[in-house]
Amino acid sequence: MDARFIGIDLGNTNQTIALADASGNLLRIERRVTEPGGTAPAILEGVLDAVETLLAGQSARDAGVRAVGVGFGGPVDMPTGTVRLSHQVPGWEDVPLKALLEERFAVPARVDNDANVGTLGELRFGAGQGLQDIVYINIGTGIGGGLVFAGRLHRGVSTAAGEIGHTIVLPGGPLCSCGHRGCLEALCSGTAIGRRARDLAEGDPALGARLLTLAGGDPERITAKTAFRAAEEGDPGGRRVLNETVEYLAIAIGNLLNLLNPQAIILGGGVSEAGDLLFVPLRERTRDYCMEPPYAAARILPAQLGYDAGVRGAVALAMEG
Amino acid sequence: MDARFIGIDLGNTNQTIALADASGNLLRIERRVTEPGGTAPAILEGVLDAVETLLAGQSARDAGVRAVGVGFGGPVDMPTGTVRLSHQVPGWEDVPLKALLEERFAVPARVDNDANVGTLGELRFGAGQGLQDIVYINIGTGIGGGLVFAGRLHRGVSTAAGEIGHTIVLPGGPLCSCGHRGCLEALCSGTAIGRRARDLAEGDPALGARLLTLAGGDPERITAKTAFRAAEEGDPGGRRVLNETVEYLAIAIGNLLNLLNPQAIILGGGVSEAGDLLFVPLRERTRDYCMEPPYAAARILPAQLGYDAGVRGAVALAMEG
Repeated sequence: MDARFIGIDLGNTNQTIALADASGNLLRIERRVTEPGGTAPAILEGVLDAVETLLAGQSARDAGVRAVGVGFGGPVDMPTGTVRLSHQVPGWEDVPLKALLEERFAVPARVDNDANVGTLGELRFGAGQGLQDIVYINIGTGIGGGLVFAGRLHRGVSTAAGEIGHTIVLPGGPLCSCGHRGCLEALCSGTAIGRRARDLAEGDPALGARLLTLAGGDPERITAKTAFRAAEEGDPGGRRVLNETVEYLAIAIGNLLNLLNPQAIILGGGVSEAGDLLFVPLRERTRDYCMEPPYAAARILPAQLGYDAGVRGAVALAMEG
Repeated sequence: MDARFIGIDLGNTNQTIALADASGNLLRIERRVTEPGGTAPAILEGVLDAVETLLAGQSARDAGVRAVGVGFGGPVDMPTGTVRLSHQVPGWEDVPLKALLEERFAVPARVDNDANVGTLGELRFGAGQGLQDIVYINIGTGIGGGLVFAGRLHRGVSTAAGEIGHTIVLPGGPLCSCGHRGCLEALCSGTAIGRRARDLAEGDPALGARLLTLAGGDPERITAKTAFRAAEEGDPGGRRVLNETVEYLAIAIGNLLNLLNPQAIILGGGVSEAGDLLFVPLRERTRDYCMEPPYAAARILPAQLGYDAGVRGAVALAMEG
């Protein structure tokens, strides 16, 4: 029987569950959306139901499933596969997700946080294919990351490694959700870029005029996308926001290159979809924040997996054992 | 015959060459000092002569020597063991040191930069014994570092990893020898601490009075040691310099913990000899620059090997194969 793997991208709002073959191709996909106010038990029940749907009445073993992988949208104790908590949804405190899945489906399960799982996805099936030493940075509403050394994910001694979003790039800078100041996430997440753009529009109405127009006149609707669209048009306000974003990212990436000397830095998530508008100046500025040998050795690449990165990473995690 | 290893600490001024047993104990030591104006060929000849002295007329193989390890005070292409250059002494450009040693002594030789070699020494024989994931930071006239993951040194794809001294902790900060601004080395090396202390004494004579007195009235003689001694007495000027040092180091170490989640950060070199005066506030401030799980998992420790760290690391490198 052909080997199969189940991948589960367990986000706080969207859950994607897929059955994959041994090459990581997604054969069937189930999607679930959590209603506002949804709790952990309801989300979990939806996910388990989706897996049953994929198995179509067979046991996991009879369907050829070798393992289940889960990428969870919050911190996980990886060796035990216990969810620590979700910052968005109540009821995930200390949920033994790996044990629950193994009991229900009688195959091995692996659970890790979504940043590590996204890293594995790009490594096995995306921009990192064939590479051994990469750093993955996901720039969405927050900033997560993962490290791969010698072809293996580096999770750290208490599986808390990869918090690239909470490395400090501007001491005394804006307050971050983690309670510290000047973290990369507080400057360059989609949320933070949007906030900087709104601050610009409010603090300097002339410079921010185009941002406001693109947002239909409502400053609250100015987002990172607004700023990048304005920058693409050549608007000085949009370019200011973009240039600052590039500077902070270049410092963080330059530090990563000097420290780790990887083959590639792979940027995923919504912000990285800005393409050349972001990547061209970012590669140039990173050179100015980094020594030559590690700069010359590394490429700064967009992620390749796009929307299904999470579930494909979960499949890669299932295959990792 | 008992296995023997030769370690060579090949600094620009001092060279230490030792014969060690299979436990890393130094059995015999030769020391050489380079006269000012010394060149690469002269230094190399002195080192080779010291090895011959240790071998006492025997061939390396007959003396039981299994391998030679060298820690070089400058960048090295590790796989080929070729010295790239020395920033202090002319004539080291592209010297194939590994090949020269293997030809002369007919045993395997390994050559790496002194920061990586110092890391291996602490890992095998010092504060890192029994640990698998550590970061070593050597704070001397410059700042070097090394990374150990899963018990192995992480050298990076072009063996340029570990440049902790050139990660940027204060964008726009003081100019560094590498040409960038705000690197950790430009703020916290012994040289940089001394410069900050001199700037303080010149810019604020009242606050810097004690620093000047301790330096015999000559501002040019104010060093990092002067500042730390004044801080230990409770002098406000000395404490200012110490506190700034602690802040910058805490940012850099907090970033390392968030990123790598190691078991320990080990600080070596002259500055770390300040002991509790430095380590007690540093541990406290690092907590404020880092997330709780990686902070709780890591210890911030002084290096243990002291003066012979370099040559003992070179012995550890010889044993690494």
